[in-house]
Amino acid sequence: MTESLPQTPLSQDELQAIDAYWRAANYLSVGQIYLLDNPLLRTPLTPEDIKPRLLGHWGTSPGLNLIYAHLNRVIRAKDLDVLFVTGPGHGAPAIVANTYLEGSYSELFPDITRNEDGMRKLVRQFSFPGGIPSHTAAETPGSIHEGGELGYSLSHAFGAAFDNPDLIVACVVGDGEAETGPLATAWHGNKFLNPATDGAVLPILHLNGYKIANPTVLARIGREELTELMRGYGYQPYFVSGDDPADVHQQMAATLDEITNEIRAIQTAAREGGKNERPHWPMIVLETPKGWTGPKEVDGLPTEGTWRSHQVPLAKVRENPEHLEILQKWLESYRPDELFDEQGRLRDNLAALAPEGTKRMGANPHGNGGKLRVDLKLPDYRDFALPVSEPGGALGEATRAGGDYLREVMRLSADARNFRLFGPDETASNRLAAVFDVTDRSWDAETLPTDDHLSPDGRVMEILSEHTCEGWLEGYLLTGRHGLFSCYEAFIHIIDSMLNQHAKWLKVSKEVPWRRPISSLNYLLTSHVWRQDHNGFSHQDPGFIDHVVNKKADVIRVYLPPDGNTLLCTLDHCLRTTNTVNVIVAGKQPEPQWLSMDDAIRHCQEGAGIWSFASNDRGAEPDVVMACAGDVPTIETLAAVSLLREHLPDLKVRVVNVVDLMRLQPDYVHPHGLSDADFDALFTPDKPIIFNYHGYPWLIHRLTYRRTNHGKLHVRGYIEEGTTTTPFDMAVLNGIDRFDLFIDVIDRVPGLAESAAQLRQAMKDKLADHRRYIVEHGQDMPEIRDWKWPAA
Amino acid sequence: MTESLPQTPLSQDELQAIDAYWRAANYLSVGQIYLLDNPLLRTPLTPEDIKPRLLGHWGTSPGLNLIYAHLNRVIRAKDLDVLFVTGPGHGAPAIVANTYLEGSYSELFPDITRNEDGMRKLVRQFSFPGGIPSHTAAETPGSIHEGGELGYSLSHAFGAAFDNPDLIVACVVGDGEAETGPLATAWHGNKFLNPATDGAVLPILHLNGYKIANPTVLARIGREELTELMRGYGYQPYFVSGDDPADVHQQMAATLDEITNEIRAIQTAAREGGKNERPHWPMIVLETPKGWTGPKEVDGLPTEGTWRSHQVPLAKVRENPEHLEILQKWLESYRPDELFDEQGRLRDNLAALAPEGTKRMGANPHGNGGKLRVDLKLPDYRDFALPVSEPGGALGEATRAGGDYLREVMRLSADARNFRLFGPDETASNRLAAVFDVTDRSWDAETLPTDDHLSPDGRVMEILSEHTCEGWLEGYLLTGRHGLFSCYEAFIHIIDSMLNQHAKWLKVSKEVPWRRPISSLNYLLTSHVWRQDHNGFSHQDPGFIDHVVNKKADVIRVYLPPDGNTLLCTLDHCLRTTNTVNVIVAGKQPEPQWLSMDDAIRHCQEGAGIWSFASNDRGAEPDVVMACAGDVPTIETLAAVSLLREHLPDLKVRVVNVVDLMRLQPDYVHPHGLSDADFDALFTPDKPIIFNYHGYPWLIHRLTYRRTNHGKLHVRGYIEEGTTTTPFDMAVLNGIDRFDLFIDVIDRVPGLAESAAQLRQAMKDKLADHRRYIVEHGQDMPEIRDWKWPAA
Repeated sequence: MTESLPQTPLSQDELQAIDAYWRAANYLSVGQIYLLDNPLLRTPLTPEDIKPRLLGHWGTSPGLNLIYAHLNRVIRAKDLDVLFVTGPGHGAPAIVANTYLEGSYSELFPDITRNEDGMRKLVRQFSFPGGIPSHTAAETPGSIHEGGELGYSLSHAFGAAFDNPDLIVACVVGDGEAETGPLATAWHGNKFLNPATDGAVLPILHLNGYKIANPTVLARIGREELTELMRGYGYQPYFVSGDDPADVHQQMAATLDEITNEIRAIQTAAREGGKNERPHWPMIVLETPKGWTGPKEVDGLPTEGTWRSHQVPLAKVRENPEHLEILQKWLESYRPDELFDEQGRLRDNLAALAPEGTKRMGANPHGNGGKLRVDLKLPDYRDFALPVSEPGGALGEATRAGGDYLREVMRLSADARNFRLFGPDETASNRLAAVFDVTDRSWDAETLPTDDHLSPDGRVMEILSEHTCEGWLEGYLLTGRHGLFSCYEAFIHIIDSMLNQHAKWLKVSKEVPWRRPISSLNYLLTSHVWRQDHNGFSHQDPGFIDHVVNKKADVIRVYLPPDGNTLLCTLDHCLRTTNTVNVIVAGKQPEPQWLSMDDAIRHCQEGAGIWSFASNDRGAEPDVVMACAGDVPTIETLAAVSLLREHLPDLKVRVVNVVDLMRLQPDYVHPHGLSDADFDALFTPDKPIIFNYHGYPWLIHRLTYRRTNHGKLHVRGYIEEGTTTTPFDMAVLNGIDRFDLFIDVIDRVPGLAESAAQLRQAMKDKLADHRRYIVEHGQDMPEIRDWKWPAA
Repeated sequence: MTESLPQTPLSQDELQAIDAYWRAANYLSVGQIYLLDNPLLRTPLTPEDIKPRLLGHWGTSPGLNLIYAHLNRVIRAKDLDVLFVTGPGHGAPAIVANTYLEGSYSELFPDITRNEDGMRKLVRQFSFPGGIPSHTAAETPGSIHEGGELGYSLSHAFGAAFDNPDLIVACVVGDGEAETGPLATAWHGNKFLNPATDGAVLPILHLNGYKIANPTVLARIGREELTELMRGYGYQPYFVSGDDPADVHQQMAATLDEITNEIRAIQTAAREGGKNERPHWPMIVLETPKGWTGPKEVDGLPTEGTWRSHQVPLAKVRENPEHLEILQKWLESYRPDELFDEQGRLRDNLAALAPEGTKRMGANPHGNGGKLRVDLKLPDYRDFALPVSEPGGALGEATRAGGDYLREVMRLSADARNFRLFGPDETASNRLAAVFDVTDRSWDAETLPTDDHLSPDGRVMEILSEHTCEGWLEGYLLTGRHGLFSCYEAFIHIIDSMLNQHAKWLKVSKEVPWRRPISSLNYLLTSHVWRQDHNGFSHQDPGFIDHVVNKKADVIRVYLPPDGNTLLCTLDHCLRTTNTVNVIVAGKQPEPQWLSMDDAIRHCQEGAGIWSFASNDRGAEPDVVMACAGDVPTIETLAAVSLLREHLPDLKVRVVNVVDLMRLQPDYVHPHGLSDADFDALFTPDKPIIFNYHGYPWLIHRLTYRRTNHGKLHVRGYIEEGTTTTPFDMAVLNGIDRFDLFIDVIDRVPGLAESAAQLRQAMKDKLADHRRYIVEHGQDMPEIRDWKWPAA
């Protein structure tokens, strides 16, 4: 491919300058890994100059430095706007070095000055207690990417590029990372990128050949097969390859010149020529040695160009004089005197190679998306209220109401282009199809006349990859926009690990003073555990909530709206928040609606409250508290209460519904937590509580074990029982049904066990009737299907 | 590609026969989705013949039926051994229909006879209460694959093929599934498959064009790009394409003839010719309409060949006479009279098309791996004991001892070829490198002279994809073999969702009488949260345990061996178990060793026990229980106890170590649970318990909230605080360190708050000293680094 490019686009001066810049970054990368002091080698290195614990990853750093230096050049030459996404995030020494060299680092960390003193602090702080982490992270200027877990760089890059037409997102993909599943499918992002209105993604596959201890797959399939793979993914690959710096510099410069022209040509064709065909975007395969310019051999074993360069190639520098000498020579090989002046400043001719202001990749505002974020224009959610004249008087589909609301969010954000909806092919299935009144599904691949709402300009992002949806959304949020991920509840576990990294990012970014808040990561989980009518056991898992609540309390929120109007309030609230993860679980099936919009607003503000229409304790002490969280458990609780009213009219029952799950934790544990006094007032200090919960029951115990009345708390929830069966049978299989709840009351309210023994048996009989009926008829008994909350 | 194949390999008779067989399977597939009764259309269909709830997935079924019928033909023609892996597992109607037609279904479910009565039960039971689920699952003959969540078929297929040289694993990959990350990288399994000693995987990409509501990406990139993609993945693609059954039958027959020849040729070249080059294995792209042979149009909208055929194309058959009529005609279009005789049996000439005995894919023993499983030959783990003359007297690396043991497991299983070790490039990093004394890493891609322990015959499976490792291992276990997955603790969350599906499989398979037990799914999680020296915050997450314990209690086990000898006992135990998921968390760093092998055996048998060497309550009531679980927490607890001994010698301290975490749950909740009496005897009914735990602290509350003394239980653990810092600082940041534990004792043992106020301050001072020291020196204070348990 590169044959036709000019062989030597760089003059000798340019070549020497860019090579010197690269050497400076390499020098500082090595310095960060090894040096405690003496960063300019003013005297020969001694063991005291060396860190006692050598930590970090050298292997990927020289490649990252090369790419960064050459992107600087092309940014300057063509006045480009480039965001750098570091797939090999453990190469933080390289990114820190480059942002220091270009000056953006010192602007954000004024203590790290651009002189010898600052350089001493720079090298010392890396992987050092009280300093900075070894991976790119929220502390790293220009980064949008927690650089530890691998696999998400390319989907983040596409997310950053959407609706940023002038941005080029240069995404370095390590050849190790390229083996992960999420990365292997993220290449297909090019079928969802609109050259007319989105920016460009420039993937740079860094083929340095090795992982921790093994060669990489893509480095060992030959160039022909790799070319086919990249072409099969829809790209035009350009190879830059070698171990002679001068040669590689020329190749890289020529390739970047060519590629940036090509990107512009594609965009112009789409924007001015109206060309609507999916382009074959360019990408680069950079083949350079792992740990390039590092020690060729250590202790008699080949090191440069092998997996032995992955982390710290010289492990015993303090203890082994031979290692110390190799390090001294290695650092000297970069000729620091040519790079830094007497004060330790990068020499002017080299400093001039970096772009200026916000064109510096460490200062690109897209890399600190909160700076660009504007609030989302939201409609008045009350306009979409489901009419509820009396509790349970009408059926409604909660997520369909949510879809109507989201349609207007989509409409109002059309000009700002700062909201997208993400989901693995489930937008319609999840009853959100109203959004298609105002936009399409994003689609830049082939279309057929029978296709439905597909267009390159669509703002609904659907691909059958939860990883890609999550990565796109994260990238979109991290660069200052807004979004919502709607997903089947069970399969959101697919991105558990991505959520971990994003939650870590949020936790740390709140501690970094210059990071501006970004929009929250919002999940609407539907097609939930209780209504997997078409699917059954494999689609039943409510455990994402459990996973999420392990994260830092001030980052996570969980909502279980019991009906449509509470869902609308909750959606509106979540779309206004920043720097949190909001998990909303709501059903999509026709279900009784409980609260008018006014009541719903009040209930959502309280987060957990008494439902007086269903309670008969009249402000006095109840005999039992019937608590519920989640739409289906709420129905069963109310059905049980209606049975209690009928059969045990003197029993004083209080119904408490919880919409904001974190209310259950104490206020000193979670910012939404109820005080112990408020909790006791709601749940009583000593009466039996029968808590019917949407998910795994023990989560409620884990949230409330510190509460006064925890000893009397009995929780029902999903206990991993289920198959393809009727909706009510799912409740029965897991014991959250009305009859089992009734029996719980009898068993737990003092005195009832004796006086209501017959009623207990009657409920058991009902359960047996149910079983017989469904096996005979294949659907629930009429009294279940037609059940309604009794009119007042 | 197919140009050179014979155009009409099937005679007219053969063609008609295979088409009839396909029609029979289609007929039964439709029947299962719709019919409650009248399976042979003895009278015109009435609403009463129709299920009240129409559930299931028609779209993929005709394609699966076509593949199954043609595989039957080639199995018979060439006496092949074929395992069928159903990626589109929601196409269960097809697999159930085919196993019924071939007779394997009725052998396993004698109630479902091969006549009209059996057929009535067959169609009725599908997605019906008390019947079978709508997806392929443990109940489905020949299946190794929970067919709900998409993405894992191809890695399962490779796992099944390893060490099964005579097996062909035909793996149908849906084009929806192909968009998932795990599937997108699973294609690379061909670089790890040894044609000499492994079987073949035949991927069949079923390009029916649509997901739930969208076209699929791979169906819309054009044949050229798709060909490049498959060639880039290392395959030779064969296209079978069309919507005319006769034409497609001929193509499919010709292609399967050709491909099975090619597979044999590849294997012969490797086995007899010693050819050691990675072959380009054949694969099929099958392009047929979604819902092929179904209604062309429903309610005026195109249906066959669109996403509208995904689930139930006719939704209102009971209510809408027009729909009922379409269904009647649809079923009649298969001409059931030609297919089934008067008794409702498949006609003899068609029945003769199925293979016989265990050649039938529903009866292939690899699909019920427990039938083939033989116990693993294990060495005596006591031979690898770390010498422990006195508690804490020596340092040792637990996983290195584990590696020595696994080396012998590997050696002893070399002949049986029934054990492999799986991990994402971390075997050496996790200190298990001893296994390379007896085997290599599996690698069939290019090699270089500097490569280390790579060979096509290697039995250590390393790819930087946790999904692939998990999928391979599951496939290997499901077909009757043994294995272990070693992984960084934090990143095992990547496979949370796969674990869900496997745990569901195990839960259900125990309830299916003909399923034989398979080897347990064993995890060795190391490089754990407390020792991420090189990586920091992004690599810190102990929450996989929380995820696992949500699964069915009789399926899951969690072990936290505190040292090397307990790890050896635990590994040996886990490798002997069946039908469970065993999670072992153990460190790889040099750490004090506590128990001699005899003591370790005793301790592991108890699961949780008093460490008398560290306790001074001498059988009496202690003042405080110092409990610990996990290697680093155990060290800190013992260090705290040594401080207590020194400073508060009269305080009676009991040290309890928990190695089997599920001991904490009551015996009526988990089979390993302690009775309440035993729990009280260990932890006391009323003394303060300071529990130092490896993971998120609230998990301990969730496991023990029912216990007598839960009110006095104080748990410390990982609270999501960390960065790249010193090992002891990680403990301090999260409050699990010796000084904080000491303070906990003072705060919780009655009377100490006053009498030991000075000591409390001294511990606070120690924490401040620590902070100052590490920021100055970059490593822990000598008194921490050199700490040892005091000699007796």
